[in-house]
Amino acid sequence: MSTTRPSTRPAEAPQTPPPTPPDEPPTASGEGGGGFSRRRLLGFAGAGVALAGAGAGIGFAAGASSGGEPARDGVVPFRGRHQAGIVTPAQDRMHFVSLDLTSTDRAEVQRLFQKWTAAAERMTAGLETSENGAVGLNPYSPPADTGEALGLPAASLTLTLGLGASFFAKLGMADERPPALIDLPAFTGDQLDPNRSGGDLCIQACSDDPQVGVHAIRNLVRIGFGTTAVRWSQLGFGRTSSTSTAQATPRNLFGFKDGTNNLKAEEPQEIDQHVWVEPGDGPDWMTGGSYLVARRIRMHIETWDRTSLQEQEQIVGRTKGEGNPLSGQKEFDVANLAAQGADGTPAIPVDAHIRLAAAESLNGVKILRRGYNFVDGSDGSGHLDAGLFFVAFVRNPETQFVPMQRALANKDKMMEYLEHNGSALFACPPGLADGGYWAQSLFT
Amino acid sequence: MSTTRPSTRPAEAPQTPPPTPPDEPPTASGEGGGGFSRRRLLGFAGAGVALAGAGAGIGFAAGASSGGEPARDGVVPFRGRHQAGIVTPAQDRMHFVSLDLTSTDRAEVQRLFQKWTAAAERMTAGLETSENGAVGLNPYSPPADTGEALGLPAASLTLTLGLGASFFAKLGMADERPPALIDLPAFTGDQLDPNRSGGDLCIQACSDDPQVGVHAIRNLVRIGFGTTAVRWSQLGFGRTSSTSTAQATPRNLFGFKDGTNNLKAEEPQEIDQHVWVEPGDGPDWMTGGSYLVARRIRMHIETWDRTSLQEQEQIVGRTKGEGNPLSGQKEFDVANLAAQGADGTPAIPVDAHIRLAAAESLNGVKILRRGYNFVDGSDGSGHLDAGLFFVAFVRNPETQFVPMQRALANKDKMMEYLEHNGSALFACPPGLADGGYWAQSLFT
Repeated sequence: MSTTRPSTRPAEAPQTPPPTPPDEPPTASGEGGGGFSRRRLLGFAGAGVALAGAGAGIGFAAGASSGGEPARDGVVPFRGRHQAGIVTPAQDRMHFVSLDLTSTDRAEVQRLFQKWTAAAERMTAGLETSENGAVGLNPYSPPADTGEALGLPAASLTLTLGLGASFFAKLGMADERPPALIDLPAFTGDQLDPNRSGGDLCIQACSDDPQVGVHAIRNLVRIGFGTTAVRWSQLGFGRTSSTSTAQATPRNLFGFKDGTNNLKAEEPQEIDQHVWVEPGDGPDWMTGGSYLVARRIRMHIETWDRTSLQEQEQIVGRTKGEGNPLSGQKEFDVANLAAQGADGTPAIPVDAHIRLAAAESLNGVKILRRGYNFVDGSDGSGHLDAGLFFVAFVRNPETQFVPMQRALANKDKMMEYLEHNGSALFACPPGLADGGYWAQSLFT
Repeated sequence: MSTTRPSTRPAEAPQTPPPTPPDEPPTASGEGGGGFSRRRLLGFAGAGVALAGAGAGIGFAAGASSGGEPARDGVVPFRGRHQAGIVTPAQDRMHFVSLDLTSTDRAEVQRLFQKWTAAAERMTAGLETSENGAVGLNPYSPPADTGEALGLPAASLTLTLGLGASFFAKLGMADERPPALIDLPAFTGDQLDPNRSGGDLCIQACSDDPQVGVHAIRNLVRIGFGTTAVRWSQLGFGRTSSTSTAQATPRNLFGFKDGTNNLKAEEPQEIDQHVWVEPGDGPDWMTGGSYLVARRIRMHIETWDRTSLQEQEQIVGRTKGEGNPLSGQKEFDVANLAAQGADGTPAIPVDAHIRLAAAESLNGVKILRRGYNFVDGSDGSGHLDAGLFFVAFVRNPETQFVPMQRALANKDKMMEYLEHNGSALFACPPGLADGGYWAQSLFT
């Protein structure tokens, strides 16, 4: 404080206060305080909004299935049989954070997950992190919410928690580690940066407004201070996959439609078979969960951009304009891997991306892709640092992601233009019952 | 190429072709080609869309004033008396690139600016970079457009060119360098990273869809290959200023409304006085132009978040909720720097940000702020690398930005939470007449 400005703060207010829990009870009503709410700013009922099912007994709220209902610019149910943000129609923007535990105290982590759950549920409903409002009720304490999402809608925010293998090791919970949560093998061509890989846990924030996603991650990181610290984080500015038939197929930074043949929320049997952990798959606590694979894939776009259209299309196996498989005419025509061109060669080349990644080339393996385009400034060598932050959800990474990535790493001609420099695998616990908290089945 | 896939490419197609000018004339109509257009995908008339005024004689097209007309999700006129992207209502997202010349050939740079102009005008109209369409007409050449914006609307894209002091030195044009394009002095506390500072020229892309802005920068960089190379680039995910009274005031990552008292497009006299270079201000070629100051300001948000609400509000000089000056009740109440609180001390503290930055504290200095929030991953020490990419436009940086920044750097209590690690200053030429090209007045 400058000596020229008389302070109105009480003497006991520390100059550099220790982190204050955002849920600190209010002690006074101060200037600018008073249960300020994002929704009130928007003309909705404010702090009094009741969260459906909050405080009720265990049980899934009706309609809160996280089952892929479109919810553009709206509220995606936070609770349900599965975590939201997996089959939820892919939102436009993403902020993903990998965190390391700075504590080995299991009970402390459990308490953190309870706090996180309360804040996450509020934020996905378009509210501030705590019932104390955006600025808090006590001017001598840090505000309960960091404030940058004030006035913004829920924007379809979803928050998805994942646990890395090292989580179980650090907390002495090796017996609870799912066998499917393997250490990913090295793949041909991997150039992994440890500062962009791994992590004890992760939170994926997806929303239609990037400020809403950034706000959510920042506030969860803040609540975790003392128990977790940021290991790496990644912004994605544009979705590269559709996870619903209601969505148009977006384009990746190679300029091609991406995810045409992705699993879709409207195919529940396929989703059950390939995405959700079923009873008997592993430890009971993971039933209803899924595994999240993250790969930061730098794309050498400058080299790609000097490649001929024909070469690009043969590498992908689809046309650049319409996005049809080279065996067909329309985007959603089923790729016919046996089709031949006029010269008797395969219409879809033998090393084309869509052939190698096709279920019929991989004994039926399918994955749910949910990645995002990124540009992270430049690389210092005259090029943009751009690419695809690949995110996929699978029922079992060992039998789904590993064989697919191995085939691509070894044979995909596209690999010439790619650099996998980040990699992580997380177990995403099942969804939250009413009154429950993230990963509760692991702790109880 | 794999030996197992017979190539259908002609023998003369090089395996690693040299960069092909995107405007290479078509030689054949190939698979997937054919004048594909972003607009055609959207159901608009396609490649035949005529650009208003294109090819007409010198003169400003009616209605193309770049004068701040709201154009949400629409097309912002590319041509006009001033460059677009300055008083244009601030779009939601930004991609900014600083480039260095890799050529010292003035005529080559002039030709590049002509090519850039043609591509930029098309992209701001929601079209591909060239009339050859998105994928080009020749499958043996690289596509004319990189493709990732196919199907996306114009999204209010603006592209704004700026020239750094080193531009004039490299091209032997020192006599043309405007005296106002100074070398910025060092400010107290500066921690500038040369890899985030300076640059021979810059292009600011603002749009309401980040993929549209990224696409534009990438394609301009591509067209510039051989003449320019990326020095640094910055994505901004959310605007932190309003430049029109029609816009709500957004919030920065300190959680406060930012730019409440900014210059607005609806105040043309103020804009003329503080933003546009007038005749007699400097070299004639800059008349109608402006100067762009860019500062990458890391915000130590974790420390800020541990600061009490009262402290935060006294540092800013406004409340966090409503955003009113501490001397008033409502956001747009004029800050009364002379107002006193009940205890006789200044209502707006003597070292508050809004006092130090106020025109009345700076002999009437005002600037047009047009910055963006950013999060660039993490810093490797457990924190997010987050902050404000400050962009301002001024008529004269020496008499406007320098005294303001000097006052803030020396006295602003907020500086404790900030780290200025990037800095650059560019001269933005005036707008483009019909048929003219970027910076034409400099070359002719």
